[in-house]
Amino acid sequence: MPLPRRIQHCRVCGAATAYRIPPDDNRERAICSACGEIHYENPLNVVGTVPVWGDQVLLCRRNIEPRFGFWTLPAGFMELGESTAEGAIRETAEEAGANIELLELFTMLNVVRVGQVHFYYRARMCDLTLAPGPETIEARLFREDEIPWEELAFRTVRQTLEHYFADRRAGNFALHVGDVS
Amino acid sequence: MPLPRRIQHCRVCGAATAYRIPPDDNRERAICSACGEIHYENPLNVVGTVPVWGDQVLLCRRNIEPRFGFWTLPAGFMELGESTAEGAIRETAEEAGANIELLELFTMLNVVRVGQVHFYYRARMCDLTLAPGPETIEARLFREDEIPWEELAFRTVRQTLEHYFADRRAGNFALHVGDVS
Repeated sequence: MPLPRRIQHCRVCGAATAYRIPPDDNRERAICSACGEIHYENPLNVVGTVPVWGDQVLLCRRNIEPRFGFWTLPAGFMELGESTAEGAIRETAEEAGANIELLELFTMLNVVRVGQVHFYYRARMCDLTLAPGPETIEARLFREDEIPWEELAFRTVRQTLEHYFADRRAGNFALHVGDVS
Repeated sequence: MPLPRRIQHCRVCGAATAYRIPPDDNRERAICSACGEIHYENPLNVVGTVPVWGDQVLLCRRNIEPRFGFWTLPAGFMELGESTAEGAIRETAEEAGANIELLELFTMLNVVRVGQVHFYYRARMCDLTLAPGPETIEARLFREDEIPWEELAFRTVRQTLEHYFADRRAGNFALHVGDVS
Protein backbone atom coordinates (compact mmCIF):
# COMPACT_ATOMS: atom_id res chain seq x y z
CA MET A 1 0.00 0.00 0.00
CA PRO A 2 1.50 3.39 -0.92
CA LEU A 3 1.70 5.94 1.86
CA PRO A 4 -1.17 8.43 1.63
CA ARG A 5 1.30 11.36 1.80
CA ARG A 6 -1.07 13.35 3.94
CA ILE A 7 1.57 15.36 5.80
CA GLN A 8 2.57 18.46 3.89
CA HIS A 9 3.81 20.55 6.82
CA CYS A 10 5.86 19.93 9.96
CA ARG A 11 3.88 19.62 13.19
CA VAL A 12 6.72 21.24 15.15
CA CYS A 13 7.65 24.28 13.06
CA GLY A 14 5.12 24.45 10.19
CA ALA A 15 7.70 24.32 7.37
CA ALA A 16 7.11 22.16 4.28
CA THR A 17 7.88 18.45 4.52
CA ALA A 18 9.11 16.09 1.80
CA TYR A 19 8.71 12.31 1.71
CA ARG A 20 12.07 10.54 1.71
CA ILE A 21 13.78 7.66 3.51
CA PRO A 22 15.54 8.70 6.74
CA PRO A 23 18.97 7.25 7.63
CA ASP A 24 18.70 3.76 9.20
CA ASP A 25 15.12 3.41 7.92
CA ASN A 26 13.70 1.63 4.90
CA ARG A 27 10.55 3.53 4.03
CA GLU A 28 9.59 7.05 3.12
CA ARG A 29 8.51 9.40 5.90
CA ALA A 30 7.46 13.04 5.84
CA ILE A 31 10.64 14.87 6.90
CA CYS A 32 10.69 18.58 7.72
CA SER A 33 12.81 20.63 5.33
CA ALA A 34 13.63 23.11 8.10
CA CYS A 35 13.98 21.34 11.46
CA GLY A 36 14.37 17.73 10.28
CA GLU A 37 11.46 16.34 12.33
CA ILE A 38 10.43 12.88 11.08
CA HIS A 39 6.67 12.21 10.96
CA TYR A 40 5.59 8.57 11.26
CA GLU A 41 2.17 7.35 10.09
CA ASN A 42 0.86 4.12 11.57
CA PRO A 43 -2.28 1.98 11.66
CA LEU A 44 -5.17 2.91 13.95
CA ASN A 45 -7.11 0.66 16.29
CA VAL A 46 -10.91 0.49 16.26
CA VAL A 47 -12.40 -0.96 19.46
CA GLY A 48 -15.95 -2.11 20.11
CA THR A 49 -18.27 -4.72 21.56
CA VAL A 50 -20.85 -7.37 20.76
CA PRO A 51 -23.42 -6.40 23.44
CA VAL A 52 -25.82 -9.25 24.15
CA TRP A 53 -29.17 -9.38 25.99
CA GLY A 54 -30.51 -12.92 26.15
CA ASP A 55 -30.53 -14.19 22.57
CA GLN A 56 -30.39 -10.68 21.10
CA VAL A 57 -27.45 -8.54 19.90
CA LEU A 58 -27.36 -4.74 20.08
CA LEU A 59 -26.72 -2.83 16.85
CA CYS A 60 -26.52 0.91 16.18
CA ARG A 61 -27.66 2.69 13.00
CA ARG A 62 -24.98 5.18 12.00
CA ASN A 63 -25.79 8.89 12.04
CA ILE A 64 -22.39 9.77 10.51
CA GLU A 65 -20.38 9.05 7.40
CA PRO A 66 -19.00 6.74 6.23
CA ARG A 67 -21.93 4.35 5.86
CA PHE A 68 -24.58 6.75 7.16
CA GLY A 69 -27.82 4.86 7.89
CA PHE A 70 -26.14 1.42 7.98
CA TRP A 71 -26.04 -0.81 11.05
CA THR A 72 -22.91 -1.42 13.11
CA LEU A 73 -21.77 -2.87 16.38
CA PRO A 74 -20.82 -0.04 18.76
CA ALA A 75 -17.15 0.77 18.01
CA GLY A 76 -14.79 3.62 17.31
CA PHE A 77 -11.18 4.75 17.30
CA MET A 78 -9.14 3.88 20.38
CA GLU A 79 -7.95 7.03 22.18
CA LEU A 80 -4.77 7.89 24.05
CA GLY A 81 -5.11 7.26 27.79
CA GLU A 82 -7.21 4.12 27.54
CA SER A 83 -6.74 0.39 26.97
CA THR A 84 -8.45 -1.55 24.20
CA ALA A 85 -10.98 -2.81 26.77
CA GLU A 86 -11.61 0.67 28.20
CA GLY A 87 -12.08 2.05 24.70
CA ALA A 88 -14.59 -0.68 23.85
CA ILE A 89 -16.64 0.15 26.97
CA ARG A 90 -16.47 3.89 26.24
CA GLU A 91 -17.61 3.49 22.63
CA THR A 92 -20.52 1.30 23.73
CA ALA A 93 -21.59 3.98 26.20
CA GLU A 94 -21.14 6.85 23.72
CA GLU A 95 -22.86 5.26 20.74
CA ALA A 96 -25.61 3.24 22.41
CA GLY A 97 -25.78 4.49 26.01
CA ALA A 98 -25.68 0.86 27.08
CA ASN A 99 -24.41 -0.41 30.45
CA ILE A 100 -22.33 -3.51 29.83
CA GLU A 101 -20.16 -6.05 31.56
CA LEU A 102 -17.17 -6.63 29.29
CA LEU A 103 -16.25 -10.25 28.55
CA GLU A 104 -13.36 -11.70 26.51
CA LEU A 105 -11.73 -10.30 23.39
CA PHE A 106 -13.64 -12.04 20.57
CA THR A 107 -12.29 -10.84 17.19
CA MET A 108 -9.11 -9.09 16.08
CA LEU A 109 -9.38 -8.25 12.39
CA ASN A 110 -6.73 -6.50 10.32
CA VAL A 111 -8.06 -4.16 7.63
CA VAL A 112 -4.75 -3.47 5.92
CA ARG A 113 -6.22 -1.54 3.00
CA VAL A 114 -7.33 1.28 5.31
CA GLY A 115 -4.56 0.91 7.90
CA GLN A 116 -6.77 -0.28 10.76
CA VAL A 117 -7.02 -3.13 13.25
CA HIS A 118 -10.52 -3.82 14.62
CA PHE A 119 -11.08 -5.38 18.06
CA TYR A 120 -14.45 -6.62 19.27
CA TYR A 121 -15.09 -7.84 22.82
CA ARG A 122 -18.10 -9.90 23.82
CA ALA A 123 -20.25 -8.03 26.36
CA ARG A 124 -23.30 -8.70 28.52
CA MET A 125 -25.87 -5.91 28.77
CA CYS A 126 -26.62 -5.20 32.44
CA ASP A 127 -30.09 -3.77 31.69
CA LEU A 128 -32.18 -2.48 28.80
CA THR A 129 -31.05 1.14 29.12
CA LEU A 130 -30.34 2.63 25.70
CA ALA A 131 -29.44 6.26 25.08
CA PRO A 132 -27.97 6.67 21.59
CA GLY A 133 -25.41 9.47 21.24
CA PRO A 134 -25.03 11.94 18.36
CA GLU A 135 -23.31 9.37 16.11
CA THR A 136 -26.29 6.98 16.28
CA ILE A 137 -29.77 7.29 14.72
CA GLU A 138 -31.17 4.40 16.73
CA ALA A 139 -29.93 1.48 18.81
CA ARG A 140 -31.94 -1.74 19.00
CA LEU A 141 -31.72 -5.43 19.76
CA PHE A 142 -31.82 -8.09 17.03
CA ARG A 143 -32.34 -11.83 17.21
CA GLU A 144 -30.14 -13.79 14.78
CA ASP A 145 -32.96 -14.11 12.21
CA GLU A 146 -33.55 -10.36 12.34
CA ILE A 147 -29.96 -9.19 11.67
CA PRO A 148 -29.98 -6.76 8.70
CA TRP A 149 -27.12 -8.56 6.93
CA GLU A 150 -27.48 -6.47 3.76
CA GLU A 151 -27.41 -3.21 5.70
CA LEU A 152 -24.31 -3.76 7.85
CA ALA A 153 -21.82 -0.90 7.74
CA PHE A 154 -18.49 -2.77 7.72
CA ARG A 155 -17.08 -6.19 6.85
CA THR A 156 -15.50 -6.50 10.29
CA VAL A 157 -18.98 -6.14 11.80
CA ARG A 158 -20.32 -8.84 9.48
CA GLN A 159 -17.43 -11.21 10.25
CA THR A 160 -17.73 -10.61 13.98
CA LEU A 161 -21.47 -11.31 13.93
CA GLU A 162 -20.96 -14.43 11.79
CA HIS A 163 -18.36 -15.74 14.26
CA TYR A 164 -20.60 -14.85 17.17
CA PHE A 165 -23.63 -16.80 15.97
CA ALA A 166 -21.50 -19.74 14.79
CA ASP A 167 -19.72 -19.96 18.14
CA ARG A 168 -23.00 -19.60 20.03
CA ARG A 169 -24.48 -22.51 18.08
CA ALA A 170 -21.32 -24.54 18.78
CA GLY A 171 -21.57 -23.65 22.47
CA ASN A 172 -17.99 -22.38 22.63
CA PHE A 173 -16.67 -18.84 22.17
CA ALA A 174 -13.05 -18.51 21.00
CA LEU A 175 -10.86 -15.65 19.82
CA HIS A 176 -10.91 -15.16 16.05
CA VAL A 177 -7.87 -13.49 14.49
CA GLY A 178 -8.02 -12.68 10.79
CA ASP A 179 -7.63 -10.27 7.90
CA VAL A 180 -10.32 -8.44 5.97
CA SER A 181 -9.23 -7.64 2.42
CA MET B 1 -3.49 10.71 30.68
CA PRO B 2 -3.14 14.29 29.40
CA LEU B 3 -2.59 14.67 25.68
CA PRO B 4 1.08 15.26 24.91
CA ARG B 5 0.19 18.38 22.82
CA ARG B 6 2.86 17.55 20.32
CA ILE B 7 1.14 19.15 17.33
CA GLN B 8 1.91 22.84 17.08
CA HIS B 9 1.32 23.28 13.34
CA CYS B 10 -1.21 22.03 10.79
CA ARG B 11 -0.06 19.16 8.57
CA VAL B 12 -2.13 20.52 5.66
CA CYS B 13 -1.29 24.25 5.61
CA GLY B 14 1.42 24.78 8.25
CA ALA B 15 -0.52 27.39 10.27
CA ALA B 16 -0.52 27.26 14.08
CA THR B 17 -2.90 24.85 15.81
CA ALA B 18 -4.63 25.19 19.17
CA TYR B 19 -5.95 22.39 21.36
CA ARG B 20 -9.72 22.62 21.85
CA ILE B 21 -12.76 20.35 21.70
CA PRO B 22 -14.30 20.13 18.21
CA PRO B 23 -18.11 20.15 17.77
CA ASP B 24 -19.64 16.68 18.43
CA ASP B 25 -16.46 15.55 20.16
CA ASN B 26 -15.58 15.30 23.85
CA ARG B 27 -11.81 15.70 23.98
CA GLU B 28 -9.28 18.28 22.92
CA ARG B 29 -7.67 17.95 19.50
CA ALA B 30 -5.11 20.10 17.73
CA ILE B 31 -7.26 22.23 15.41
CA CYS B 32 -5.77 24.44 12.71
CA SER B 33 -6.39 28.15 13.26
CA ALA B 34 -6.40 28.75 9.49
CA CYS B 35 -7.98 25.81 7.63
CA GLY B 36 -9.77 24.08 10.53
CA GLU B 37 -8.11 20.68 10.02
CA ILE B 38 -8.55 18.44 13.08
CA HIS B 39 -5.52 16.35 14.08
CA TYR B 40 -6.21 13.13 15.96
CA GLU B 41 -3.56 11.38 18.07
CA ASN B 42 -4.05 7.69 18.79
CA PRO B 43 -2.23 4.72 20.33
CA LEU B 44 0.42 2.86 18.35
CA ASN B 45 0.79 -0.89 17.90
CA VAL B 46 4.08 -2.69 18.55
CA VAL B 47 4.30 -6.12 16.91
CA GLY B 48 6.82 -8.88 17.52
CA THR B 49 7.49 -12.56 18.06
CA VAL B 50 8.72 -15.16 20.53
CA PRO B 51 11.04 -17.07 18.15
CA VAL B 52 11.78 -20.57 19.45
CA TRP B 53 14.43 -23.14 18.48
CA GLY B 54 14.02 -26.34 20.46
CA ASP B 55 13.96 -25.29 24.12
CA GLN B 56 15.62 -21.95 23.40
CA VAL B 57 14.15 -18.46 22.80
CA LEU B 58 15.73 -15.81 20.59
CA LEU B 59 16.48 -12.42 22.13
CA CYS B 60 18.08 -9.31 20.61
CA ARG B 61 20.31 -6.83 22.42
CA ARG B 62 19.21 -3.30 21.53
CA ASN B 63 21.56 -1.07 19.59
CA ILE B 64 19.18 1.92 19.90
CA GLU B 65 17.52 4.01 22.58
CA PRO B 66 15.43 3.63 24.60
CA ARG B 67 17.03 0.82 26.62
CA PHE B 68 20.25 0.63 24.61
CA GLY B 69 22.15 -2.57 25.51
CA PHE B 70 19.14 -4.31 27.07
CA TRP B 71 17.61 -7.50 25.72
CA THR B 72 14.27 -7.67 23.90
CA LEU B 73 12.16 -9.98 21.84
CA PRO B 74 12.24 -8.84 18.19
CA ALA B 75 9.47 -6.23 17.85
CA GLY B 76 8.75 -2.76 16.53
CA PHE B 77 6.08 -0.34 15.41
CA MET B 78 3.44 -1.73 13.05
CA GLU B 79 3.53 0.06 9.69
CA LEU B 80 0.84 1.08 7.21
CA GLY B 81 0.34 -1.56 4.52
CA GLU B 82 0.81 -4.60 6.72
CA SER B 83 -1.18 -6.72 9.17
CA THR B 84 -0.14 -7.36 12.76
CA ALA B 85 1.17 -10.79 11.67
CA GLU B 86 3.08 -9.37 8.68
CA GLY B 87 4.60 -6.69 10.90
CA ALA B 88 5.73 -9.28 13.44
CA ILE B 89 7.46 -11.31 10.71
CA ARG B 90 9.07 -8.16 9.24
CA GLU B 91 10.42 -7.00 12.60
CA THR B 92 11.87 -10.45 13.31
CA ALA B 93 13.65 -10.37 9.96
CA GLU B 94 14.88 -6.77 10.38
CA GLU B 95 16.13 -7.06 13.95
CA ALA B 96 17.42 -10.63 14.05
CA GLY B 97 17.61 -11.78 10.43
CA ALA B 98 15.74 -14.90 11.51
CA ASN B 99 13.57 -17.07 9.24
CA ILE B 100 10.44 -18.00 11.14
CA GLU B 101 7.15 -19.79 10.77
CA LEU B 102 4.57 -17.62 12.55
CA LEU B 103 2.25 -19.38 15.00
CA GLU B 104 -0.66 -18.01 17.06
CA LEU B 105 -1.02 -14.60 18.66
CA PHE B 106 0.28 -15.15 22.20
CA THR B 107 0.11 -11.86 24.16
CA MET B 108 -1.76 -8.59 23.65
CA LEU B 109 -0.61 -6.10 26.30
CA ASN B 110 -1.89 -2.55 26.67
CA VAL B 111 0.71 -0.03 27.82
CA VAL B 112 -1.66 2.88 28.39
CA ARG B 113 0.91 5.19 29.95
CA VAL B 114 2.81 5.43 26.68
CA GLY B 115 -0.16 5.00 24.33
CA GLN B 116 0.86 1.61 22.94
CA VAL B 117 -0.54 -1.89 22.46
CA HIS B 118 2.05 -4.68 22.20
CA PHE B 119 1.35 -7.91 20.29
CA TYR B 120 3.61 -10.96 20.43
CA TYR B 121 3.13 -14.04 18.26
CA ARG B 122 4.72 -17.39 18.98
CA ALA B 123 7.08 -18.40 16.17
CA ARG B 124 9.17 -21.41 15.18
CA MET B 125 12.65 -20.71 13.83
CA CYS B 126 13.12 -22.53 10.52
CA ASP B 127 16.91 -22.67 10.84
CA LEU B 128 19.75 -21.10 12.84
CA THR B 129 20.31 -18.20 10.44
CA LEU B 130 20.84 -14.97 12.34
CA ALA B 131 21.76 -11.65 10.74
CA PRO B 132 21.15 -8.80 13.20
CA GLY B 133 20.18 -5.47 11.63
CA PRO B 134 21.36 -1.98 12.60
CA GLU B 135 19.01 -1.82 15.61
CA THR B 136 20.57 -4.94 17.18
CA ILE B 137 24.00 -5.42 18.81
CA GLU B 138 23.65 -9.20 18.91
CA ALA B 139 20.97 -11.85 18.60
CA ARG B 140 21.27 -15.15 20.48
CA LEU B 141 19.33 -18.08 21.83
CA PHE B 142 18.62 -18.53 25.54
CA ARG B 143 17.38 -21.51 27.52
CA GLU B 144 14.91 -20.58 30.28
CA ASP B 145 17.61 -20.68 32.99
CA GLU B 146 19.81 -18.36 30.91
CA ILE B 147 17.26 -15.55 30.32
CA PRO B 148 18.78 -12.21 31.47
CA TRP B 149 15.70 -11.25 33.50
CA GLU B 150 17.39 -8.21 35.03
CA GLU B 151 18.51 -6.92 31.65
CA LEU B 152 15.22 -7.10 29.73
CA ALA B 153 14.31 -3.89 27.91
CA PHE B 154 10.53 -3.73 28.47
CA ARG B 155 7.89 -5.06 30.86
CA THR B 156 5.87 -6.44 27.95
CA VAL B 157 8.90 -8.56 27.00
CA ARG B 158 9.21 -9.82 30.58
CA GLN B 159 5.48 -10.62 30.82
CA THR B 160 5.48 -12.36 27.46
CA LEU B 161 8.49 -14.52 28.41
CA GLU B 162 6.94 -15.34 31.81
CA HIS B 163 3.70 -16.43 30.09
CA TYR B 164 5.67 -18.40 27.51
CA PHE B 165 7.65 -20.49 30.01
CA ALA B 166 4.62 -20.96 32.30
CA ASP B 167 2.47 -22.16 29.39
CA ARG B 168 5.27 -24.42 28.12
CA ARG B 169 5.54 -26.07 31.53
CA ALA B 170 1.74 -26.47 31.60
CA GLY B 171 1.83 -27.97 28.10
CA ASN B 172 -0.78 -25.55 26.75
CA PHE B 173 -0.30 -22.19 25.01
CA ALA B 174 -3.17 -19.71 25.29
CA LEU B 175 -3.67 -16.06 24.39
CA HIS B 176 -2.87 -13.69 27.25
CA VAL B 177 -4.58 -10.28 27.18
CA GLY B 178 -3.57 -7.77 29.82
CA ASP B 179 -2.43 -4.31 30.85
CA VAL B 180 1.03 -3.16 31.84
CA SER B 181 0.91 -0.19 34.22
